[in-house]
Amino acid sequence: KKSFRVVILPGDGIGPEVVAEATKVLEVVAAASTDIELKLEAHDFGGCAIDKHGLPLPESTLKACQEADAILMGSIGGPKWGVNSKVRPEQGLLSLRKALGLYANIRPANFASDSLVDNSPLKASIAQGVNIIVVRELIGGVYFGQRKEAGVAPQEDTAWDTMIYNVAEIQRITRVAAQIALAADPPLAIHSIDKANVLATSRLWRKVVTETLQAEYPQLSLDHHLVDSASMFIVANPRKLNGVVLTENLFGDILSDESSVIPGSLGLLPSASLAGAPSVADYRSESFKATPGLYEPIHGSAPDIAGQGVANPIGTILSAAMLLRYSLGLDKPATAIETAVRKVLDNQDKGGEGFRTADLGGTVKTKEMGEKIVEVL
Amino acid sequence: KKSFRVVILPGDGIGPEVVAEATKVLEVVAAASTDIELKLEAHDFGGCAIDKHGLPLPESTLKACQEADAILMGSIGGPKWGVNSKVRPEQGLLSLRKALGLYANIRPANFASDSLVDNSPLKASIAQGVNIIVVRELIGGVYFGQRKEAGVAPQEDTAWDTMIYNVAEIQRITRVAAQIALAADPPLAIHSIDKANVLATSRLWRKVVTETLQAEYPQLSLDHHLVDSASMFIVANPRKLNGVVLTENLFGDILSDESSVIPGSLGLLPSASLAGAPSVADYRSESFKATPGLYEPIHGSAPDIAGQGVANPIGTILSAAMLLRYSLGLDKPATAIETAVRKVLDNQDKGGEGFRTADLGGTVKTKEMGEKIVEVL
Ligand SMILES: CC(C)[C@H](C(=O)O)[C@@H](O)C(=O)O
Ligand SMILES: CC(C)[C@H](C(=O)O)[C@@H](O)C(=O)O
Repeated sequence: KKSFRVVILPGDGIGPEVVAEATKVLEVVAAASTDIELKLEAHDFGGCAIDKHGLPLPESTLKACQEADAILMGSIGGPKWGVNSKVRPEQGLLSLRKALGLYANIRPANFASDSLVDNSPLKASIAQGVNIIVVRELIGGVYFGQRKEAGVAPQEDTAWDTMIYNVAEIQRITRVAAQIALAADPPLAIHSIDKANVLATSRLWRKVVTETLQAEYPQLSLDHHLVDSASMFIVANPRKLNGVVLTENLFGDILSDESSVIPGSLGLLPSASLAGAPSVADYRSESFKATPGLYEPIHGSAPDIAGQGVANPIGTILSAAMLLRYSLGLDKPATAIETAVRKVLDNQDKGGEGFRTADLGGTVKTKEMGEKIVEVL
Repeated sequence: KKSFRVVILPGDGIGPEVVAEATKVLEVVAAASTDIELKLEAHDFGGCAIDKHGLPLPESTLKACQEADAILMGSIGGPKWGVNSKVRPEQGLLSLRKALGLYANIRPANFASDSLVDNSPLKASIAQGVNIIVVRELIGGVYFGQRKEAGVAPQEDTAWDTMIYNVAEIQRITRVAAQIALAADPPLAIHSIDKANVLATSRLWRKVVTETLQAEYPQLSLDHHLVDSASMFIVANPRKLNGVVLTENLFGDILSDESSVIPGSLGLLPSASLAGAPSVADYRSESFKATPGLYEPIHGSAPDIAGQGVANPIGTILSAAMLLRYSLGLDKPATAIETAVRKVLDNQDKGGEGFRTADLGGTVKTKEMGEKIVEVL
């Protein structure tokens, strides 16, 4: 029996509620299998950790995460630990990303079910069939370059930040994008996004992406777009970017958020942050090693609805599916979860309004949704 | 009689075609007035200047622009002078912005006529009533900070760019945003966009914007959004950003392009780049001084349709209106042009399909559209 350690970070706001449902799903998957075992253990992280331990990423949590095969997180933050607080939950997230070397952020934007197309802010004719996976470099660029605050000598009236990339950083994220593209049949196209007409880092980005794919994955289709142009496509013609959108940290932050509103509710979307290319080897093979990764829904902690049991758990449940696939090499149960989610969303019989949580205009509660998915599974 | 010098830069591709129509409109405005005179003179700029003079911004063109009260440009660039060329048209544009100190880029995104709402990629319920004016800082930030290319010592495998701002740069663009907000009745709200949870430049940005408005324009409403969050609003709930969106150079590049697709055709939208706060003083007063500015439609040179006479001249004609208002202090003729454009677009009688150029699904030619607007004017 293969055993995996999964750390659970419920976090703040609706985090614990949505994580509870995803945990049930993981337990069902483990119970149904004769050859895998999942050891789940919860730890404090984010605002609740600030309250208990004085900092968002306590030593014990970091240690557990470092030893884990994968991490499932809810959401962190809230008005209690706002922009003016000394210690903020987001600092914990940035530290965790850096400490675990989670350099590859994977954010799919697609319709979990075709029945959701009308929920998009885009016209149905433009939204239907959108299937974009943003692969964002997560621990480089202007997020982690040197910077100087204003108010500090010399030139107290000036602040600066450095956007910086080296060849190795760009190569490894390119390989992750290639692995994700190759996991689909037929392989997905890669769209690399930069601002090469202005930035030196972007010129290096474009060169390394091109050379790495040409040398190692010549079978994949590749094109390049400027970030301003890509931001237009996502609204006007998003299918043009169907496939893998490969980009650096800051552009990825903006473009992944922009594309995430296409499906009509942030509550639906999962994400993964990986410390390596996703596992394609079979978990039963001797040589199999889990790819460490942090999985979380893309929505925030939604303090306004926390504690009411009305949040949509689907983003977290689909994050658990990504966890099984990318970290643990368990593609089949991952696909089974995704299919169950689709079936539940397709189910239009509950009072004629479909099986929908409040974010999608329905009345289904967090728990009901989780149980229904488990049932179908 | 007050006399103004306006330099015309037709540029490449469809540039000369659309500029011709806007020039007609300016001539009509001048002819109709007893107290102003416009001296229009055309100069080479962009790809055509590379072909003739070896560089995109010849000395003579720069000199004429420096002496002008305002500049009207078509569009520049084309496959002939692509990314791999040594000398590129865009370099001329960046140099001209810098040389003239055009630090304030103004990009409205709205529906020139309500009859266009159905052309939006967004659902009508989301698109209608969108009225965003992006005010982008144009000659600072990561565009003009120090940078190092890869392949250059030390650390040949590394490239970097510097995003840099000082207090004065942020103050002056904030004042332009405030003037634009105040020009409307009631004044517009200001939405400042940054990434203050990560960037030192953004923290300075947020501080200076807040302090400048509090001290100098306390009557204006101000809120702050993170750039990732703003990129979501523009798709999911753009009216939330109605008013003035104030931001730095790179974020402004991305967000202004993103919002510009809401109206359904890039051919409709104008832009202004100013070397100061827009003129509000009356041009007849002794103390009046024009605010130097460069005005251009936001669309590109569209080499695929160049020479066919089918491009939409409205973006350029509305740019000419902005030129009259912001540089020359001629608000009335500016409004008259905008009204004429709206009337022509509202006219639904041409074969039942409205008066529309090809970009909006119609059959009206560039010249016809220009003449119709002149006629209504
Ligand atoms: C909280 C913030 C620092 C973070 C980021 O910009 O990376 C967030 O927006 C995200 O995308 O996970
Ligand atoms: C051509 C390019 C350098 C330019 C920019 O990024 O500023 C363009 O995208 C623009 O917005 O005018």
